[in-house]
Amino acid sequence: MDFTSVARAARTASRQLATARREQKDAALLAMADSLLEAQEAVLAANDVDVRRAEASGTPAPMVDRLRLTPDRVAGMADGLRALARLADPVGDVVRGWTNPNGVQIRQVRVPFGVVGIIYEARPNVTADAAGICVKSGNAALLRGSSSAEASNVAIVAALRAGLERAGVTPDAVQLLTGGREVTAELMGARGSVDVLIPRGGAGLIDAVVSGSKVPVIETGTGNCHLYLDATADPDMAVAILLNAKTQRPSVCNAVETVLVHRSRADLVERVVAELTAAGVTIHGDDDFRRASPQVVAAEPGEYDGEYLTLDIAARVVDSFDDAVDHIRAHGTGHSETIVTNDLAAAERFTAEVDAAVVLVNTSSRFTDGGEFGFGAEIGISTQKLHARGPMALPEMTSTKYVVTGQGQTRP
Amino acid sequence: MDFTSVARAARTASRQLATARREQKDAALLAMADSLLEAQEAVLAANDVDVRRAEASGTPAPMVDRLRLTPDRVAGMADGLRALARLADPVGDVVRGWTNPNGVQIRQVRVPFGVVGIIYEARPNVTADAAGICVKSGNAALLRGSSSAEASNVAIVAALRAGLERAGVTPDAVQLLTGGREVTAELMGARGSVDVLIPRGGAGLIDAVVSGSKVPVIETGTGNCHLYLDATADPDMAVAILLNAKTQRPSVCNAVETVLVHRSRADLVERVVAELTAAGVTIHGDDDFRRASPQVVAAEPGEYDGEYLTLDIAARVVDSFDDAVDHIRAHGTGHSETIVTNDLAAAERFTAEVDAAVVLVNTSSRFTDGGEFGFGAEIGISTQKLHARGPMALPEMTSTKYVVTGQGQTRP
Repeated sequence: MDFTSVARAARTASRQLATARREQKDAALLAMADSLLEAQEAVLAANDVDVRRAEASGTPAPMVDRLRLTPDRVAGMADGLRALARLADPVGDVVRGWTNPNGVQIRQVRVPFGVVGIIYEARPNVTADAAGICVKSGNAALLRGSSSAEASNVAIVAALRAGLERAGVTPDAVQLLTGGREVTAELMGARGSVDVLIPRGGAGLIDAVVSGSKVPVIETGTGNCHLYLDATADPDMAVAILLNAKTQRPSVCNAVETVLVHRSRADLVERVVAELTAAGVTIHGDDDFRRASPQVVAAEPGEYDGEYLTLDIAARVVDSFDDAVDHIRAHGTGHSETIVTNDLAAAERFTAEVDAAVVLVNTSSRFTDGGEFGFGAEIGISTQKLHARGPMALPEMTSTKYVVTGQGQTRP
Repeated sequence: MDFTSVARAARTASRQLATARREQKDAALLAMADSLLEAQEAVLAANDVDVRRAEASGTPAPMVDRLRLTPDRVAGMADGLRALARLADPVGDVVRGWTNPNGVQIRQVRVPFGVVGIIYEARPNVTADAAGICVKSGNAALLRGSSSAEASNVAIVAALRAGLERAGVTPDAVQLLTGGREVTAELMGARGSVDVLIPRGGAGLIDAVVSGSKVPVIETGTGNCHLYLDATADPDMAVAILLNAKTQRPSVCNAVETVLVHRSRADLVERVVAELTAAGVTIHGDDDFRRASPQVVAAEPGEYDGEYLTLDIAARVVDSFDDAVDHIRAHGTGHSETIVTNDLAAAERFTAEVDAAVVLVNTSSRFTDGGEFGFGAEIGISTQKLHARGPMALPEMTSTKYVVTGQGQTRP
C-alpha cells in the first residue's frame, strides 16, 4: 500500500464530498447500509478468520468477544448508517454573518475538514461508524484499524465502497490503511495531506497518537470522574446519582471513579457504604470511610489517579468545599465532574471553578454522552480544550470558512 | 528560571483569571497601560541596550527598526491595552443551551483555555499586546520573546505586572520566559501544564513550533494569496482590487502574490501589465504575459509557490475557471483567495470549491484582517482547520465547557 497515493486519492474524494448535497450523502449512507447487509456472509467469514487467529494466539475472551461479529452486530452497523442519514447536515450552516460599514458582506460557513484519519482498536463495528460519520460530514476517511481485525475491516470497507459507488459517490471517500506500523507513522506524519487525526481507543493508543502526530489531533480522553456530596446534599438524591453513575455501566469513561463526602455528613458516609456494598461495589476508602465499615478496603497511594472501569470506587471524606475542588484539580482528567448540593453558591462555584469538559449539578455523569445530549451521533468525548470539548457530534467534524462578498470595495 | 514552578504559578493565576469579572479584567488592563507609561524611561533604556547589541552584531537596519521602541510606540502599546478594555468579554457567553426531555438542562459556556504560551519574534510591542489579549480572555500568559529583545521584554513585563498587582490581579497572570533554547523546548513539551501554544512570527518559527510541540498549537500561517480575474470580470473593478491587494501594503500575509487571468481576456492582461508596471510592481509572468510587454520578466520554476511580500507579483493566463481553481489548489496556502467576476455560477463555484480560510468575491484580500472584520483585536490569521480558521479574536482565545443541571435525574 502506497500511502502517498492513498492520501492523494482521499484529497480528490474530499473535494467531491465537500460540495455534495445532503441528499447525495444520505443516499450514499443508505446504499452503504444495504451493501453491508448484502455482504453479510463475506463479512462474517472474514471475521471468523480474525477470531480464530485471536483465539489461537491466546487473546483473552473479552477481547475476542469485542472482535466477534454476528448477524445482529452487522445489522447494528447498517442501522447506524441509516440513523446518520436522518441527522441534519452541518455543512453549509452559516455560523454567523454580518455586513461591514463599507457594504462588504461576511459569512462564516461550516465546511468539512477535508481528509480525516481515524486510528482505532479491535472493534470492527467502528469501521462502519467512522466511515459513516465522515461521509455525512463531507470528509474523506482514512481508516486505520487494528491488525487483529484486518480481515473483517477489509470485508466491511469493500462493502461500504460498493455502496458508495452504487450511489454515485467516489469509493475513495472511504479507504482502509492496511500494512505494518510504518503506515501509522506515515499517517501521523502527513501534515498537509491529512487535516485531522482522531484516535479512538484506550489511553495507550491516545497517548501514542497525541505525542507522535504532526497532524492536528482531536483527543478523546480518559475519564477519572468525581462525585462530590456537599454539606447540603439531599441523601436520597445523592445515593441515586451515585449508584447510577457507578453501577449503571461501570466500564465507560463517564462512570464515576471517586466519591468525595463533606465531613459534616457522617450520615451520608454510612449510607454510601451500605448502598454501594449492597450493589456489589468494592470501596477503596480513606480512614474515615474505613471506620464506617470493615468492608471498606484501604485506598492505596495512587488509588485516586486512575480509572477502575469496574465495580470499584475510591472514597474520601473532605473537610470543605475547597478541599473537594482541590482533590478534583489534583486527580481529575477534565472529563465529567459532579456536585450534589442544595446550596446555590456551592453549585455556582463548582461549575465555575472546576475545569472539566462537563460539570454537573444534581444529576448523573452518565449523561455525558452524545446520544444523551441529543446529538444523535457521537465520535467520542473530547477532553482537550482546542476545537471541541465534551461530546463530539457532526458539527465538531467540520471547520469553517469565511465567505466575503463585495462590489469592488478596496481597503483605504 | 525553573520552568516547572513558572508553569505552576501560571496555572494558579489562571484560576483567579478564569473567574474574574469583566470589570476586574478591564481595570487590570487600564492599570497595565498606566504602569507602562509610567515606566517609559526604564523601558526605553532597556530597549536601548537591545538596540545597541543588535547594531553591534551587524543586524540589518529593518530588523533593528522593528526592535526599536520610541515614546510613540510605548504610547501605542498603552493605547492597545486600553482598546482591549473596551471590547466585549467572550468568557461566560452561552454558545447554546437546551433542556432535555427528562428536564436536564444543558448549557455550553465559553471559558478561558487556562494557560496560553505565546512564542514570538523581535518586536517588543507584541509583549504588551499578547499579555493584554490573554488577560482580557481570562488566560494566564507565558510569553517567550526573542533573545534579541530580552532586556526590553523584561522591562515591559515588569511594568505590566506592577499594573496587574495594583489592580488586585495576581502578577503571575503575565510571566516572561527568559533563558536559552532549552526553555522553548520545555514550553513546547509542557502538555497538560500549558493548554495552547500560539507562535507569532515568520514561517520558520511557525514550522518549528508546529513540528516540535506536544502542546496543541494554533497555527498562524503564511499567505500565498491569489487573485483570479474571470471571463466576466469588470475591468475597472479588477484593476482596482488588484492594485489594492498588491500595493496597499505588500509586506503582509493578505497581500496578493499571484494574478490569474482567463484566456478570453487579452484586454485585461494588457491593462494589468500597464497598471502594475505604473505602480512600480515587477511582474513575473508566463509566456502569455511576456508577450504583452517586454517589462514582464519570466516566471521561474517554483515562482508560484512562495510569498514575495514585496512589489513583485507572479502572473499567469489560465484556460478556464477550472484551471484557475487547480492552480490555486496546487500553490495556495489556504489563506485568502479572490475571484473577480460577474458570473453568479462562477462566484458560487469559487466560494464552494476553493479551500481557504477566507474566499472573496469582488473585493480585496486586504480585508482579511481582524480589525477590518470588526473584531477590534487580532491574535493572528489561522490557516489551520482545527479550532479557529481565519482572523482570530478574543472568542478564539477561549474553549467551552458544558454545564449540566438536574434535580436528581439518573440514566435509565
